[in-house]
This record gives sequence, C-alpha cells and structure tokens, in this order.
Amino acid sequence: MNDPRIIQPRTLKGFRDFLPSAMQARDWLLESAREVFHRYGYAPIDTPALEYTEILLGKGGAESDKQLSRFEDNGGRDVALRFDLTVPLARFAAQHIGELGTPFKRYHIGPVWRGENTQRGRYREFMQCDFDTIGTESMVADTETALVIHDVFASLGVGEFRIHLNNRRILSGVLESIGLAEQSAGALRAVDKLPKIGRDAVARELEEMVGASPAEAGRLLDAVSVTGSNGRVLEEIGQIAEGAADQGIAALTEVIDGLTAADIPESRAVVDMSIARGLDYYTGTVFETFLSEIPEIGSVCSGGRYDDLASLYTKQRLPGVGASLGIDRLLAALEELGRISVPATPAPILLALFDASRAVDYVGLAAMMRDAGLGVELYPDAKKLGNQLKYADRKGHQLVVIVGPSAVS
Amino acid sequence: MNDPRIIQPRTLKGFRDFLPSAMQARDWLLESAREVFHRYGYAPIDTPALEYTEILLGKGGAESDKQLSRFEDNGGRDVALRFDLTVPLARFAAQHIGELGTPFKRYHIGPVWRGENTQRGRYREFMQCDFDTIGTESMVADTETALVIHDVFASLGVGEFRIHLNNRRILSGVLESIGLAEQSAGALRAVDKLPKIGRDAVARELEEMVGASPAEAGRLLDAVSVTGSNGRVLEEIGQIAEGAADQGIAALTEVIDGLTAADIPESRAVVDMSIARGLDYYTGTVFETFLSEIPEIGSVCSGGRYDDLASLYTKQRLPGVGASLGIDRLLAALEELGRISVPATPAPILLALFDASRAVDYVGLAAMMRDAGLGVELYPDAKKLGNQLKYADRKGHQLVVIVGPSAVS
Repeated sequence: MNDPRIIQPRTLKGFRDFLPSAMQARDWLLESAREVFHRYGYAPIDTPALEYTEILLGKGGAESDKQLSRFEDNGGRDVALRFDLTVPLARFAAQHIGELGTPFKRYHIGPVWRGENTQRGRYREFMQCDFDTIGTESMVADTETALVIHDVFASLGVGEFRIHLNNRRILSGVLESIGLAEQSAGALRAVDKLPKIGRDAVARELEEMVGASPAEAGRLLDAVSVTGSNGRVLEEIGQIAEGAADQGIAALTEVIDGLTAADIPESRAVVDMSIARGLDYYTGTVFETFLSEIPEIGSVCSGGRYDDLASLYTKQRLPGVGASLGIDRLLAALEELGRISVPATPAPILLALFDASRAVDYVGLAAMMRDAGLGVELYPDAKKLGNQLKYADRKGHQLVVIVGPSAVS
Repeated sequence: MNDPRIIQPRTLKGFRDFLPSAMQARDWLLESAREVFHRYGYAPIDTPALEYTEILLGKGGAESDKQLSRFEDNGGRDVALRFDLTVPLARFAAQHIGELGTPFKRYHIGPVWRGENTQRGRYREFMQCDFDTIGTESMVADTETALVIHDVFASLGVGEFRIHLNNRRILSGVLESIGLAEQSAGALRAVDKLPKIGRDAVARELEEMVGASPAEAGRLLDAVSVTGSNGRVLEEIGQIAEGAADQGIAALTEVIDGLTAADIPESRAVVDMSIARGLDYYTGTVFETFLSEIPEIGSVCSGGRYDDLASLYTKQRLPGVGASLGIDRLLAALEELGRISVPATPAPILLALFDASRAVDYVGLAAMMRDAGLGVELYPDAKKLGNQLKYADRKGHQLVVIVGPSAVS
C-alpha cells in the first residue's frame, strides 16, 4: 500500500491545521474582540515572528529557554520564535514610543510558539490576543481595560461571566501588616493556587516554602478569603491591613466606581482578594475572568497593571495596563457550550449548475445575485443534482437555487 | 551613553514592525479581500508556521533550500518555516480532502518566511493571501477566480486595473506548431521575461539557451505579441498554431465569455499571449493583474490552473485553480497612489479628561457614548487641554469632546 514516492502528509506534534469550521469560529471570536478594541481606541500592531534570542530571553531566563524554538539563522544570528506578545511589545515600545507618543493603546493578535509538553493538552503554536494601554498610571486606563473585557464577553454571548479584580498593592499591604513583606513573591505564588489546591495545601506551602508561621499563614488566608459586596470586601481588607493597604484600596475603589458609572452590574465585576496572578510582573490592578457556565476551565481573560514595561530595552519608564484573551481556551469553551454562532459556510446560497453547455449563463446569474448583495457559491460542475444538493447539505448552505430549462418548451 | 544593562531594541534584518498606521492599512486591504472571498464561498483555513522540512522541500529542491529557515527542533526533528502557502495547501489537501470533499474552496492569509537577499528590497517575513478552488476541472472555477480578482480590485478603489489572461495549453500548441514542444519549459521561461527585458533579449535567450533557430524564435515572439480585441487575438493565435492550440483556445474562450456574462468590461480582462508564468506548476489558465496607474510595479495578483496539486503527498489527483494577492506590493502601490482610505485611529472621537477628581464620571460618559454606537477613546490623564488636543491631532481623531464644569456656578 505504501508508495515510497509519497511523502506522508502530517503536521508536527503540537501543531494544528484549522479547517474551515474551526477557522471561521476563530475569526468570529477575533473579529468580535477587534470591534470592541476599536470602539475604545486600541489600534492594531504586528511584530516579527522571529526575534534575536537576546531580546526574547531578556527577562524570562532559564525557564523560557527550554520552551524556545531557537536556532542559528542563515546569517549566523542567534534567533528564536516569539513565545508571547508581551516581550515583543516591550521591545516594540522601547523602539517606537518616541514616534508613537503616550498614552499608546495597542492590540496585537498573532501566533506564538512554545516547546510545550503536548501531553498536558497544550499546543506548540497558538494565537494570543493582547491589548494594553502604555504610558499612563491613571486608573481610568485600568477601568477601561475591565470595560473592554466586559464588552468582549457581552458581545460574544457566552452566557454570564464574572471579572475578578484585585490590586497587588492591597496584597502587599496585607503581607506587610502580617509581617510577610519580605516573602511576598513566594507568598503570592502560593495564594494564587488557592482555587486549585485548596486552603490546607496553600497553608502548608506558606509554612514550608515561604517560612510563614501557622498564625501568619492563617491571617493571610483569612484576608484573601474575605467575601461580600465589593464595598464590604474593600472595607474589611482595609481593617485587616491596618492602613498598610490604603493606597491600593483607593486605586481599586476608583476602578470599581468607574465600572459602576459605566453601568456594569456588580455580579460581573467582583473584588476578589484571592486573585494574585503569580507573575512578579504585575504591580497594581489584576484581572481574571471566569465563565459562569464553565468556571472549571479557569480564567479566559487575565491581565493587570505593571510599573515598567520595557526596562530591559530602554531607560524610559513605561507603566501600563492590559489583558490577554485566552483564545484556545475560549474557543474550546464556546464549542462545549454550543455558543459558536458562525455560519457553516461563508456564502449562504449555492447556485446549482444544471447544464454544462450553459455554464456561462450561470456565471452571469451568479454575478447578478452577488451584485444584489447575496453571497453565492456557484457549483462548478454539472453533476447530478442529488450530488450538488448533498454538497450543499454537508457544507451547510442555507439555500440552493436551481435554475433549469423550462419543462414546457 | 550606552548602558550595558540595556539590550538594544531592534528587529532582525529583513523583518518589520507594523505600527498602527501600516497595520490598519494592511487590515483594511485583507478585510476587503476577505469580504469578496466570502461572497464567492471561499472559506478560511490556517496551517502551522512550522512543518517537517521533508514536507516543504518536496518539490522546490535546492533553490528553495537556500531560502529556508530550517532547524532541528527540541525533539530532534528537521523542521522549517513555511516559505509559501501553496506547499502547505497541498499537504493540507492531501491530509483532509476526504473529510472536506470537493470542490473545496479555501483562502489562506498568513505570514511566510524566506531567507531573501534584503538588498533587493525584499523582506524575510511577509504576508501571503491565496485563494484556490480544488477538485474541479471546470472553467467555471477559472472564470470565478478572475471574477474574485476583479471584485477585490474594484472594492479597493485603486483606479483602473487590468487582468491579463492566457492558457498554457495555447502556448504549448503554438510551441508544438513551431517545433519547439520539447523545449517548452525553457521557451516559456524566456517568453515570461518579455515585458522586462524586451524582444531582442528574449530572442537571444531563445536561440542561445533554448536552441531555437532565429526563424523559430521570431515565430514564437510574433505569436505572443499578437494584440487586438480578445476575440481577434484568440482567432489569430488559432491560425498561427494551426489547430494545435484549439483545446486551450476553447477553454480560454469559455472564461472570457463568462467574464462578459458577468458584465466585466473587456478593458479589465484582456487575453495576453505574452503571459506565460515561469512556473512549470501551471497547466491551464494563467492570470496576472496590473494597476493602470502604476503598471511598473508588476503584477499585483497572479495565479492559474494546475493539473495536480498534491501529487507528492497523495495518489488522489487534485486539479485546481487559484491566485495570490501581492500584499506588500499592493500596499506600497496604494500608499504611493494615496488610495489607502483607513482612518488614522480606530475610535473617531477623543473624550478629553478635564478634571481628575471626576474621572469616574468621564468613564460613565464614555460608556454612554459607546452604548450609543460611537467609537470613543477616553484620555486617561487630566493633562493640560492643549496637550490632549495635540494628542488628538497627531493621532487623527475626527472630533474631541470636551466636557468641563459650568463657567457660571
């Protein structure tokens, strides 16, 4: 059976083809996001897939290194495929911000590559969709980031969703008041695992890895578990932190007040002290977003505020705030929920070809229908009508137009 | 001045950042094309950036090899970045056509990578935009390919343009009648250079490289230089080829008749015997497209019919027809013509922030305006109004809305 002259058609492990149905779903999702970005004044940019390895490895160090598709190019340069859109944004901003000016609002949709372990169901090539506002410390930018997240999910029609908000400075204040300020990075990494591994395991990690006493771990866990209305949580955490979190509380209050002024219901934007975001990178507001119908898939849009985007590439301090839509996760969720509302095929009408000798007339008829604003696919061969109808059925055309010779001649 | 801790922000030679203005132009161009593709029933697909080198090198051989970004991945596989979208389509079709069925109409927009010599003004990363109909030999598909080209350029508003059509089988018939059938590949490659190097140089190449006699070269050059109305050219070439080109002439006549039936003026679709397309790949109809206002940039959309797309990867014969939009060339042309009609910034309105203490109210006002369907960017900082106006001016906002406290209190 095997013909040695035939090359087995296949993709690399961890890489995917997008067939029309999957691709149309992805395009619909990205187009929905794009419309919202535009409405808020975020402009698109693009950067190269390949960068100098030195540029990409700047911050990530050894861990990122393992995940890099890195090689020597034909000119002997040490290059690699980008593994996210954040490092390229930092490099881009350092290079062009003088020309672009601040505030600079951009979104970036594009593939990234990681040498992920595919056994965990991860892909080695996937789309990212990031949006950021750079060059301002105003909480207006943080508020609008949350509003964009809100509008994207509202426009997708994914059922109810909830944006969880926190501010890293509140957590720092709490840690300070407990006496864990020095260990904050480890402590926040542990707290970040709360929804996944539970209170007891986090307490153990705080004691064993971070060096907290059982009482300190307990106080921290009590603090991040405060629940209630947004106002109530902020008030209670203020008391727990004994003044050390007041700046963070004021900042988050401004964001929450802005969301209220924009008529976002409190059920969709909740202050959640347990949202820490493991990355050291974030310094202010942090966001995570959960779909109420499938919360178990985790956050589908996360982000936050950072003090300085591009310190590796420029001395100019560039604070900013942004978030990233989890495209793959979201598409999987939408498919599971049956909420992908894209047509099966781009042209709703199939015009059957009834008579090969009149093909030219069918071409003219199809053109006339398109001129009238209709999406029309013309079947190219005068095959049996049954075959053409099957084709339309399989592809999901909404209508088949059949034009044949008059029965009465 | 140089801080050794700072990594110089830069892109690799031959790679580009797309700033918002360039990116919005590219998005506008691609979105215009996408709308036309959809109207004709072409569906989007995507394939991985990386493929097995074996898959990519199948046909191209040594020449492509030099241009490949090729490396060993972390799993020891010989991989490379795709250098076009045609080879991935062939691999994709061989792999999925059983599931997709024929005719299969797809478009594919994505970056490709080549180790080009950048001194010739070429890039090592650029977007391609291809559309194809696979699995039919019907001239209806060729006609609709030309119609798509027509509609894309008509929708872009690039001024007048002209699609040049030919059929490789007509040229083969002409070569046969002259007695150059055996040397057809070399002869067509030479003829393809006619607009660039002129008649005398092509004649020399035909004699020296292809082995034609001066009389044979002259007859061939006379044949490919026939001009006149489409009907006249086809008639004259039929006489020159003495019957050997009749099948090709009938096929091209069907395409031309279809275009006429679709009301395409003859000034926009001309039979041109000098269009050969160097690639051996094409076997039937061939297309090139020129902008009347800048013909010197060369063809901005080219393509043709092929007998068998994926013979390297499957025994199933897959004939098809398609074309490729030259995105970079077209964008450069449109910019030169001043025909890029995209807004400078995605949200037309800038809402100035007048009073930091009322930021929350501005957030609410911006939300209300967006709910009313307006694109509104809210300036995040209460900077001097002059600065905010300068910002709006530089970015190209059409309107600045200024809401401040009443002068009369």
